[in-house]
Formats: sequence, C-alpha cells, structure tokens
Amino acid sequence: MIIVMKKFAENTQIERVLETVNKLDLKPVPLYGTERTVIAVIGDERPVDQHHISSLPGVDKVMSILDPFKLASRDTKHEDTIVDLGDGVTVGGKKIAMMAGPCAVESETQMESIASEMKKAGVQIMRGGAYKPRTSPYSFEGLGSDGLELLSSVAKRHGLKTITEIVDIRDIDIVGKHTDIFQIGTRNMQNFNLLKEVGKTQKPVLLKRGMSATIKEFLLAAEHIMMNGNSKVMLCERGIRTFETETRNTLALATVPLIKELSHLPIIVDPSHSTGKPTLVSPMTKAAIAAGADGILVDVHPNPQEALCDGDQAIKPETFHKLMEELKPLTEAVGRLL
Amino acid sequence: MIIVMKKFAENTQIERVLETVNKLDLKPVPLYGTERTVIAVIGDERPVDQHHISSLPGVDKVMSILDPFKLASRDTKHEDTIVDLGDGVTVGGKKIAMMAGPCAVESETQMESIASEMKKAGVQIMRGGAYKPRTSPYSFEGLGSDGLELLSSVAKRHGLKTITEIVDIRDIDIVGKHTDIFQIGTRNMQNFNLLKEVGKTQKPVLLKRGMSATIKEFLLAAEHIMMNGNSKVMLCERGIRTFETETRNTLALATVPLIKELSHLPIIVDPSHSTGKPTLVSPMTKAAIAAGADGILVDVHPNPQEALCDGDQAIKPETFHKLMEELKPLTEAVGRLL
Amino acid sequence: MIIVMKKFAENTQIERVLETVNKLDLKPVPLYGTERTVIAVIGDERPVDQHHISSLPGVDKVMSILDPFKLASRDTKHEDTIVDLGDGVTVGGKKIAMMAGPCAVESETQMESIASEMKKAGVQIMRGGAYKPRTSPYSFEGLGSDGLELLSSVAKRHGLKTITEIVDIRDIDIVGKHTDIFQIGTRNMQNFNLLKEVGKTQKPVLLKRGMSATIKEFLLAAEHIMMNGNSKVMLCERGIRTFETETRNTLALATVPLIKELSHLPIIVDPSHSTGKPTLVSPMTKAAIAAGADGILVDVHPNPQEALCDGDQAIKPETFHKLMEELKPLTEAVGRLL
Amino acid sequence: MIIVMKKFAENTQIERVLETVNKLDLKPVPLYGTERTVIAVIGDERPVDQHHISSLPGVDKVMSILDPFKLASRDTKHEDTIVDLGDGVTVGGKKIAMMAGPCAVESETQMESIASEMKKAGVQIMRGGAYKPRTSPYSFEGLGSDGLELLSSVAKRHGLKTITEIVDIRDIDIVGKHTDIFQIGTRNMQNFNLLKEVGKTQKPVLLKRGMSATIKEFLLAAEHIMMNGNSKVMLCERGIRTFETETRNTLALATVPLIKELSHLPIIVDPSHSTGKPTLVSPMTKAAIAAGADGILVDVHPNPQEALCDGDQAIKPETFHKLMEELKPLTEAVGRLL
Repeated sequence: MIIVMKKFAENTQIERVLETVNKLDLKPVPLYGTERTVIAVIGDERPVDQHHISSLPGVDKVMSILDPFKLASRDTKHEDTIVDLGDGVTVGGKKIAMMAGPCAVESETQMESIASEMKKAGVQIMRGGAYKPRTSPYSFEGLGSDGLELLSSVAKRHGLKTITEIVDIRDIDIVGKHTDIFQIGTRNMQNFNLLKEVGKTQKPVLLKRGMSATIKEFLLAAEHIMMNGNSKVMLCERGIRTFETETRNTLALATVPLIKELSHLPIIVDPSHSTGKPTLVSPMTKAAIAAGADGILVDVHPNPQEALCDGDQAIKPETFHKLMEELKPLTEAVGRLL
Repeated sequence: MIIVMKKFAENTQIERVLETVNKLDLKPVPLYGTERTVIAVIGDERPVDQHHISSLPGVDKVMSILDPFKLASRDTKHEDTIVDLGDGVTVGGKKIAMMAGPCAVESETQMESIASEMKKAGVQIMRGGAYKPRTSPYSFEGLGSDGLELLSSVAKRHGLKTITEIVDIRDIDIVGKHTDIFQIGTRNMQNFNLLKEVGKTQKPVLLKRGMSATIKEFLLAAEHIMMNGNSKVMLCERGIRTFETETRNTLALATVPLIKELSHLPIIVDPSHSTGKPTLVSPMTKAAIAAGADGILVDVHPNPQEALCDGDQAIKPETFHKLMEELKPLTEAVGRLL
Repeated sequence: MIIVMKKFAENTQIERVLETVNKLDLKPVPLYGTERTVIAVIGDERPVDQHHISSLPGVDKVMSILDPFKLASRDTKHEDTIVDLGDGVTVGGKKIAMMAGPCAVESETQMESIASEMKKAGVQIMRGGAYKPRTSPYSFEGLGSDGLELLSSVAKRHGLKTITEIVDIRDIDIVGKHTDIFQIGTRNMQNFNLLKEVGKTQKPVLLKRGMSATIKEFLLAAEHIMMNGNSKVMLCERGIRTFETETRNTLALATVPLIKELSHLPIIVDPSHSTGKPTLVSPMTKAAIAAGADGILVDVHPNPQEALCDGDQAIKPETFHKLMEELKPLTEAVGRLL
Repeated sequence: MIIVMKKFAENTQIERVLETVNKLDLKPVPLYGTERTVIAVIGDERPVDQHHISSLPGVDKVMSILDPFKLASRDTKHEDTIVDLGDGVTVGGKKIAMMAGPCAVESETQMESIASEMKKAGVQIMRGGAYKPRTSPYSFEGLGSDGLELLSSVAKRHGLKTITEIVDIRDIDIVGKHTDIFQIGTRNMQNFNLLKEVGKTQKPVLLKRGMSATIKEFLLAAEHIMMNGNSKVMLCERGIRTFETETRNTLALATVPLIKELSHLPIIVDPSHSTGKPTLVSPMTKAAIAAGADGILVDVHPNPQEALCDGDQAIKPETFHKLMEELKPLTEAVGRLL
C-alpha cells in the first residue's frame, strides 16, 4: 500500500498515519519528497480497510500494490483449474466446453428438440433457464420448479450435463438438485449472500460478470464463493455496458487473456447476451476461442420467433451446426479440441 | 411500437409480422416507404415482448413508443407522491427530507453520539447499516441483527425515524421490525425477488439506482415493487459508473428534474456514495436541492477515521451542522423548507 | 512515482530499473516487500515518460504520485484566476458570468432580437456559432465569416462581449478579430495544435471538456494552452458520454467543486448541450450555481423550432428571463452575484 | 422518421407538425393511438435536421428509421470495397493486411531494423508516427518532417508501403508526399475540416474510431471523407473508453462483424492501443482475424524500453515473428490469406 500525503500535510498528521500503520502490524516507510511525503507500507495489505487510512487527516490518497483477490489469483495457484462435471465432462482443459440451449425452458417438446440437436452437434452441457430475472415486471419469468424438472429429465435422457440460473437464496436446494452447474447471472454478481450460499456447496458455479463490474471486482466476486469452500468456479464474460447501443452490450474479449494472466479459473464467453444479435454469434464465438476462451455459453432455440425470452438473440439449431463445423479447423489451429 | 423491416424484406415476411401483431390484439398499420416498409402498431404495447417480434424473419428493429413503466409514471398519476412515515414526517412534499447517519452501525456510543447530533441539527430520519454488501470478502460486513436493534432503540430514544439496508430476502421480517424505511442498495436494484417481497409489505422503500442502470430500468425496478401493492417508493440517485475515476461514481444530477417529469415518486440524492469525497458532499447537497431533489441521504460519522465502513466519504457532525446552516437560505430561495 | 515490480522479478531486472531511474536524475528507493519489490521514486516525475519505465522487463505497473499538470494546478497558484474581458466584464470572481445566445448565428434579425433580449436580462456575454462541427455531413455547418461579422457587429451595437467557437487552425486570425473569447469545443479538446495556437495569443479561451475526457486529461488540455503563454483559460463542463440515453450527455456536476480543489481556473457549466432538453436547462443552471460554478453557457433562441442547429435544446428568451428572476435569490443565498 | 407526440398534444400542434413535414417534401402519416398520436414520415429523412422537428411544440421525440450514412452503407454498395495501394498491395480482400512498426519514428537505425524485420515477416505496410498527439504537453511529440522522410526513405528501400498519422490540416501536402495511407487518429475522428481535406485527395485513409464514438458516428465520419470524393476509406477499431482500467481501452471486437453488415468498407483492428499491454496483442490479433477483420495495425519496436512513445504496449520483432507463425493456420481456418 502506498499512502500519499497532501502537499502541505503537517508533521503530526504524518506521525498519526505512521502510528496507525504500525498498529495494523504493517511496516510504514516514510519517503520525504520534494513536494509531498509518501508512506510506503510493507506487508500484506489485503485485510486492511483502505478507507480507514484514506480518511485520516492529511492523507490525499491510498494506492494498492497487491491485487485484492487471493484464492482466485494465479500468484496463489499456478496451474489452470479444471472443473470436473463427472462422466468425463470437464471445463478448463484443452477441450472447449460448449454450453448451449434456450434462454428459457418452455416445454417438453422444445427441450427434447434442443437436446437431441445439441447431442448431435457434440455438445455436452445444455443450458436452460427456469427462473428468469426480467427488467420489466410484465415479462415472462420462467416456469420455476417445473422448468427445472423438465431441464434435468430431458438432459438425463440424452446424457447431457446441465446449467441453469439461480436467482434466489431460498431456491438453493431445489436448483442444486436439478442442475450440474449453478449459473449466477450478471445482476447477481454482487449478491454476496447468494455467492456465500453457493460457496458452501460443492457444485460447480458459473459466475457471470456484472454488466458494470471491473475485472478486479469480478475476481473478488469469485473470491466470495471460494472463501466459503467451493473452488469450482468458472468465470463468464458476457459483455459490459457502454455508450454503444447497436449491440446489447459490449463484448470485452480482452478479458479472456487478461483473466488467464490474473487467475487460474476457466473463462467462458457468452456471445448471445453480449451482442444481442444472432448474426454476431458465430463471428464472436470464433473470436472468443481464438482469444483463448475455455468455453462458450450460447442461446440456441428451435424456433426463435416463438421464444418466450430473448428470442431475438438466439440462433437456430441449423446455424449452430454450421458454426460447429466452422469451429473445427479453428480450434485445431489454436491448439484446442472441440 | 414501430416495426422497421429490413431493406429487402419479402412480402411474406411482412405479412407474417402483420399477422403476429393482429394475434396480440393490436392493430398494425403498414407504411410502404421508398427504401423500407415500416409497420406502426396501435394499442398498448407494454405487455408485449418486443424480442418476440424483433426475432421474426425480415424484421430489422423494433422501437417502443410508450414508456415501459406504468404505475411509476406521471402519465398515470399527475400529483406528486408524498410518503408518510408517521408522526408528521413525510418525504416528497415541500420539506426537504434529510436522512443522515453513519454508513454502518458500529456501537451504542457511536449511535448515541450521532443521534443527538442529528436531532440537534433538525434531522428527522437517521440512517445506519446493519448488513453491508462489500466488494471484498475481507471487509467488515456489519453487525447484523445487533446493529438493527441498536439503530432502532437509539432512534426511538431520540424521536428519529430510521432507514437501513436490506440485502437478503430472508431478513425481511427482522429488518422490517426495526426500520421505518427499507433501503434497497445499488447492487440489488435488479434483485427482482427482493423487490417483490418488499413490494408485498406496506413499509416505505428507498430504491437506489443501480450503478449502471438507465433511468428507464430504474423506473421499471420501482414498478416491480409497486406492482406487488406497495406504492410508497422513494427513488435515490447515487451516482453511476463512468470512465471517470477521480470521484467514486458520477453523480448524474439531471436525473432529478428528469424523474420529476417522468414519475410522481419522490427523488432523493446521495452526495456521499456518489462522490466518495467528503469535500464534495456540501456543494453537491446544495446542487441537488437546487435541482429539485426531495431529500438527501448523507454519511455522517462522529469520527470518520475510525469508521468501519467508507469512513473516507463521511463528513463530521460539525461539517454537517455548517451545511445545514448554509442550506437554510438556499432551500428558501428555491421555495422549499428544510 | 511508484514502480511495482512483478511478483517474481529477478534481481537484474530490479537493478536495471534502479539504474534507469538514476539516469533520469531521480532518486529510487527500493522497498523489498514480502511478495513484491516496490521502487519509490523521489523527485519531479512529470517530465518523465512513464511508458518508458513500465516497458522495462520485470515491471508490473507504474503509478503517479503527482498530478500531471502544473500551470493549471492550484498547488502552483493558490488564488482563483479571474479572466478580464475588459469594460468591467470578468469571469471567475464573485459575479456569475452568464453567456447566452443561439447555437448558430443565422441572420441579423435573429441576432438583433437575441442581443436586445440578452442585454435586457443583464447578460454581458453573447454566444453564437459561425463554424459548427456537425456529426452528419448533411447538417448546416454555420455561416462562416459572415456569421462572425454578424455576431461582432450586433454585439458591439448592444455593448455585449462575445464568445464563438474556433474549429480550424487556419481561422485563428479571422475568428480572433471578431470575438472576445475563443471557444474550443468538446471534439477539439485534444486537438493539440489548435490548443497550441490559441495558447500563443492573449485572447481568453473557453475550453470545453472532451465528451470522454477524464478531469486530469481536461486539465492537461488546459496545460497545453497555458504552456504556450496564454493563462486566460476558462474550463467548461458540458456533460460526458455514458450509457444513459434519456439525456444527450451526462452532466457531471461534481466536476465543479473538484476543479475548484485541483485548479485555480474558472469553471463554467453548459446546461444545454449536457442535457439536450430545454426543460432541464433551468434546474441544472440552478444546480450548477449552487455547486459553485463561475458561469453558465446557455443556448437561447428566439424561435427554437426554426433554429438551424440544436433547436431542440434551446430555451426561449421568456424562459431565460424567468430563470434570471429565479436565480437572483439563489445566487445571493450562495454568496454570489448575478 | 417517426414523430411521437406528447400524451396531451393539442390538435393545432399535430397540425403544425404535419405542415412542417409537408414543407420538407416528405409525406406525413398520422396514426391516432389510444394514448398518443404518432406521425410516420415517408421519404428520405437523411437530409432533414431532426432537432428542427423535435423542437416543435407538442413533440415528445423523433426516431430515425434509416441509417444516417449513405455512401458508407452496404445498402448503397453491396460488394466489399478493396483499397488498392499499388504494387499488388491491397486492403479489404482475402489477404489480411498487416500494418506494423513503431508508434513513433525515432531514428534511422530504429527504422532500418524494423523495416528489415517486418519485410522478413511478410509485412507489406509499415507504420510509424512523425506527428504524435500527446495527452501531456511534456511528452515527446514526434520528429515532424524529418520523421516523415525517414519513414518514406527506409520504406522505399525495403519495398514497403507506409501509413502515418496526420494531425494538422496544414501538413496535408507534406504528409501526403511521404505516405501511402493517411492515418486519422482517434482524437481527430470528428475533426471535420481535416476529414474534408483528406477527402479531397485520392490517397487512402485509415480512420480510427473515436474513443467514445458510436458505430453510427464512426460511419458518419467516414461519410464526411467520402462525400468529398475519396472513397478509399479503411475503418479501424482501436478500443473505446469504458469504466475498465486494467486495459488502456476496451477493444469492442463485435464492431468487426457489425461493420461488415452495415458497410462495405474494410475494417482493421489495432490490438496495441486498444489493450495497452504487449501480452494481450497476440491473443487479440487472433481474435480480430477470427471475427473477420481485414487487417491489423500493430506496434512493433526493436527495443520497447527505449521507445520514445508508448513503449509499454509495443511487442518485439521476435514476438511478432512468432505471432505470424501462429496466424498462418488460423487465417487458413477462417478462409483468409496472410
């Protein structure tokens, strides 16, 4: 931690900061510059509340040296984390994990149709939402527990793993019973009590980036889960909110190699919610894999114009099959498997 | 709703859109332009899922005409909503509602000191957090139910109303028992199940704007609460996230008069979390009131450098007293009462 | 400057950094922490290119201690700068400088009408654009030199000072001849050669904040002008670009008191371009003055619906007169003059 | 164009809008809805100033139907534009155009070294800045005309084409004499007079996206050039400004396929300025090509830590050679040539 004093900070103010740092069992090193005094702090700053120090009289600002996350950091664990879903299905290794399916579970016919298409395409993990957070209270909110049962029974029949969103702490048992992966949506990335609860289970968690979360906040959210004992966390870049309105969000693909530097956790990309346009899904899937993503979470719907949720961003099974064909040489070219 | 067809949309595609609109009991009016066909839709578009229509083949984009919120809209209710907290304390009328106190409840001494200072300053509503959502899992998370009891007992002793944040659906009874206003924080603005639950009570709710929420999404979040039967909603502008890092957030004060145009709900401003700097609290409080805000939610702490939460943005009681003095002529000049 | 080395930086890398700093005539102080080595640099870091150091092997990041601007800094000059326009008209003192007029100069009738209205309202500085930067090449681009002459002759007749935008280095003489203040628009805040040229004159400059410029970049742009010898710089907050689309830009009013802390230059607010809505102009003007602004730059047009430029954000003279009436008690309440 | 009237708009206001539209030689179609009247306008709305109409009394908002650009639009020209630089070098066809070299031209040694490395790597276009726009007035601003001569003479010797930035209208002849491509930087994307001047030449232009420009504004900037007669425009995505600070900018790669839909112009990606980190250059180059980019503009410097400009984002020639090797199978996999 570096503490920058104000230009005309008094000696008593400087001394008070030194004392405060000492009390925290850290070592302050004052550096008397030509314009300002700077106090470098030696020791692990992470457990310290910076606001505490920045509110001392005479302090101008406090700057961190260490990244604030620890368990999620590649400094702590060098090798890549591989999340094992059982039955040979893994996320984070050489094989790209394709997670595909409809935004919302709607009916048995729909799920059957998708499941058989996804299976045919070589997909191992089927997505489908039963609880949908919706901006407008007038929108379809999902089938709830009936949707969960549909998802899991159809998936089992086809030998697919599942991923579905959990939005309410009270649903942790029922959702946990029916899914192989808890999905935490963008709006819940900082729902800390929900993170804590999924952290207490041993079920893999896919954590979506908050739409205005920095990468550090994203990794700190993962830290909330890991601190509670669950290290099976997969991160998911799904676009951030910017001034651009032509796409639903702005897919920040540089997040992928950057996360790979900062963390050992797998990183997945969602080309559907990030762009909001089906024509952009295929090129952005390719780009994500070329950038080093470990998996793709994509909306596929047998009949987008009848979809009860986000139909305008789903691609059709035939488009998905074509994409899978095109991905084969590409994944090979970047040294991955599909 | 206006449906814009693609430049080379086929007749069968246009006909399918017309049919679909008819099925929704709305009236489509096709307009055949020189370059494109546009279909204007007459009727109430709010219950319709636009994504449904925008995913139809040949459709380029769909644009809304009506604002998507209804209960929160000034079109629906012309006169200002005044939220009554009992004992003559109201929010939304001529009198500016000052809500002041520490970010976190820490101890009886702290709360007693603040309560007597706030009372002296003419404040009617005391704030204080018992459950604190924290970006880092290594930060102080509040005293929980002990904090709630401290807050309510001290407030009662001093004849003050209270406001405190609720972060977990499971706490609705205990928080409701101890506070006069539920505060929904920025990270929970789209925690729809939490909105629904506070909407089922009759306790006033202060809803903070999500840090990357548009004004429309903000009003739709209020709509989620109101739809469940609770119309005692106060909105709170607390800064949005932008590229600027000198201030913690960017206080978007034009939100105040804009909300007044769009909605009948009271609008409060938080000059503390929005700026993150105690020196900016007084000028931005004045600016907020000049812009038409109905109240101010401000961090005051007897000893900011000992604060367990956000001490670096709190002002001291003496600064607050001075601010109240300065606000007197200003509120009068803009036709309000303090 | 603080140089943070990578976690596993080698000794030879650390030594190379120490050497490099020594060569720059600065004093490096290495601090060997538990996880990383940090090198504090003592001396004036401003002339040093940080990128130079951050590209050295083993360096993780470089953090500045000092603000990068010097001439514009309040650390350098304590007292407020007051820009003198002659004939008793000043900007930056106790009196609020109202700068009002149409976005574009259109005709003598229009300018005469505005000038007499503005004079009557007590305005001392009339605005009016002759060269208009327009997003679309199909829009009206201003009357050019004819517009300049209209502006200056009408203003002279009414005893008003003038402000007009300069967009092209080649126009410096002709614009300089006709105006009392050079306005640098948001799109030219980092047109460094234009800044340099107006910096070589002694004519006052109103510098608008770039729509995505940080406050530091804004002050550095002022520094470009001041370095060339012209210290008569007025800053103008005109809204920044964010995700919000209900207003044209997001007026970041906390910029006002923050600039007052960081710099001695006057700060003006433009409530017209920042909001893009005439109904928001009056409340945001009041808010700006309450926040401590030294002046207001506002679009007034005798007939907004006939305006050739941005008519949808201009207010009418009668609205302006009413605003001036309402501002009187407010400016007094905050200790300023109108 | 769709004109939405206010909820309680009067008949005389509606009639005035109809009249105004008629006068513009467009056909208004009024639609009387349950809550509001909407007026659809048939005809080419592009030459009309929307602000003009949105300022009419009773008008709530005006929405465009047609994209505001015409010459740059794929609706106007279906097939991809291929920019021919002579000697068989083209941009926009099957071959990926690699444009590589240092941020700033510094010396003959530096340029010779880079040129021979780039030639060896198969690069056809060398970049190098002679005029550098710099945020701080204390930074290196380029060698000016000496730099231009160095660039062109070295490039000629090695049979390379060149690209260099123009920042000042007065330099159009000298820069034009020495370069094969005018580069317009992000800060000048809306320097309309500069766009006009390069538009009057027949030299190819690489137009960088403004750091806070929407895609529509980006294409409108291209339109400014094309309207003046020069259709040899290449667009360049170089990252936009967002709240994220881990990377210098946020590379918005979905821009690539989106531009391909909206426009016939080639689209280049700059992985260096967009990320600001050399370790992210290779993955983002791969991602850009997988997304469909027509070329890459990349900072390569023989000795980044001695670079006078942006050394911290440049990659070394050896890294570049390795990248080119890795790109071969990838470009093939996506059906392009390197």
